[in-house]
Amino acid sequence: MRVGIGYDVHKLVENRDLIIGGVKIPHEKGLLGHSDADVLTHAVIDAIFGALAVGDLGSHFPDTDEKYKNADSLKLMEYTYKLMNYMGYKIGNIDCTIIAQSPKMAPYLDEMKENFGKILNTDLKNINIKATTEEGLGFTGKKEGIASQCICLILKK
Amino acid sequence: MRVGIGYDVHKLVENRDLIIGGVKIPHEKGLLGHSDADVLTHAVIDAIFGALAVGDLGSHFPDTDEKYKNADSLKLMEYTYKLMNYMGYKIGNIDCTIIAQSPKMAPYLDEMKENFGKILNTDLKNINIKATTEEGLGFTGKKEGIASQCICLILKK
Amino acid sequence: MRVGIGYDVHKLVENRDLIIGGVKIPHEKGLLGHSDADVLTHAVIDAIFGALAVGDLGSHFPDTDEKYKNADSLKLMEYTYKLMNYMGYKIGNIDCTIIAQSPKMAPYLDEMKENFGKILNTDLKNINIKATTEEGLGFTGKKEGIASQCICLILKK
Ligand SMILES: [Zn+2]
Ligand SMILES: [Zn+2]
Ligand SMILES: [Zn+2]
Repeated sequence: MRVGIGYDVHKLVENRDLIIGGVKIPHEKGLLGHSDADVLTHAVIDAIFGALAVGDLGSHFPDTDEKYKNADSLKLMEYTYKLMNYMGYKIGNIDCTIIAQSPKMAPYLDEMKENFGKILNTDLKNINIKATTEEGLGFTGKKEGIASQCICLILKK
Repeated sequence: MRVGIGYDVHKLVENRDLIIGGVKIPHEKGLLGHSDADVLTHAVIDAIFGALAVGDLGSHFPDTDEKYKNADSLKLMEYTYKLMNYMGYKIGNIDCTIIAQSPKMAPYLDEMKENFGKILNTDLKNINIKATTEEGLGFTGKKEGIASQCICLILKK
Repeated sequence: MRVGIGYDVHKLVENRDLIIGGVKIPHEKGLLGHSDADVLTHAVIDAIFGALAVGDLGSHFPDTDEKYKNADSLKLMEYTYKLMNYMGYKIGNIDCTIIAQSPKMAPYLDEMKENFGKILNTDLKNINIKATTEEGLGFTGKKEGIASQCICLILKK
């Protein structure tokens, strides 16, 4: 049994899609990044890498690599799952928080959970996604960016 | 065995009480929110909801609901405990951090722990509350708000 | 089995060494603090104190105590290990994140891991250190400071 923690931030800018947990959310701005900048999926991946003690997102998917330009982060999560599986672990449970002043995340949380459950091959009762704001404070409060954190417990198969 | 993580922020404003971990702390400002804005208790509740994979504070206690106006967050924690108990889990351990530039939290930590231990029906050796600052940086450093984070481990009874 | 979480922040200033995870990193600025201000080592220590439910860094090593002026934080980690050992626990695994806009942490992560493994008497496969940025946002993005977070799982011996 091992634990991991992930944290990720991306800037909100115009002319980008807002993709969180693999869900394209209608919004006037989107997240900037080399890949699709899916801030929640990145935090989950980093928590799993952390629990496995195999480095981080940047060491597995360098943002200098053209291969990951506009990459679908759910594909990166598939790689992460395969690595976890190969190393002999499975998800115990995952709990995440999206920190965003807007838009409202509640309508999209179920679809995000389904995306993660399918890829990580785990029951939906092992995945939780929360949403909160920083009450107008900090860079998420000023809508300059969105942050996410994730904790995971993995179990030896 | 399951893990959860909670994070909460509230603004510091005049003419509000400062209630943290159920303790009313003498201070020239207090935390703004629909409920009593007990930033630490909210983080603990969110960590437990997260470990149970039952959503978040906002989904259980909507801030649009008049019922929760100025609500005592320890009452919300009682509901959380009952839900955890009903689902067949108990607290393994809880570790929290209050992030505030001022006031000093140290004199109040024991009372907060006692509040949580009583409601969560767990030994005080299973509860830890830490306090730190961001060294004058960010919105907590500028005393615009207070943040809290919490991690919990819950065990199948 | 118990979990803990640690979070620490220090300001970046001139005329101070930048010491992270016990590694002196060449940089035009360093971290300000009463001790050596090793932001990562402090987060790890706080996570272990948290898992043991024995308070926090400030309660064990008061920054008003001359004894800890410019203290080597790895020495504080040795004390932490001894306390954990005395209380009958050992490291399950540790996962940390350094949040810094610059400098690049990747070249130093292995040496940090070795420092921690030696002191905490645990295999390197039980220690993970990640590095990320807040993409130019917030106080870490503006290079005003560096933050770190850590999660740990400890096991009854
Ligand atoms: Zn990212
Ligand atoms: Zn709250
Ligand atoms: Zn420190």
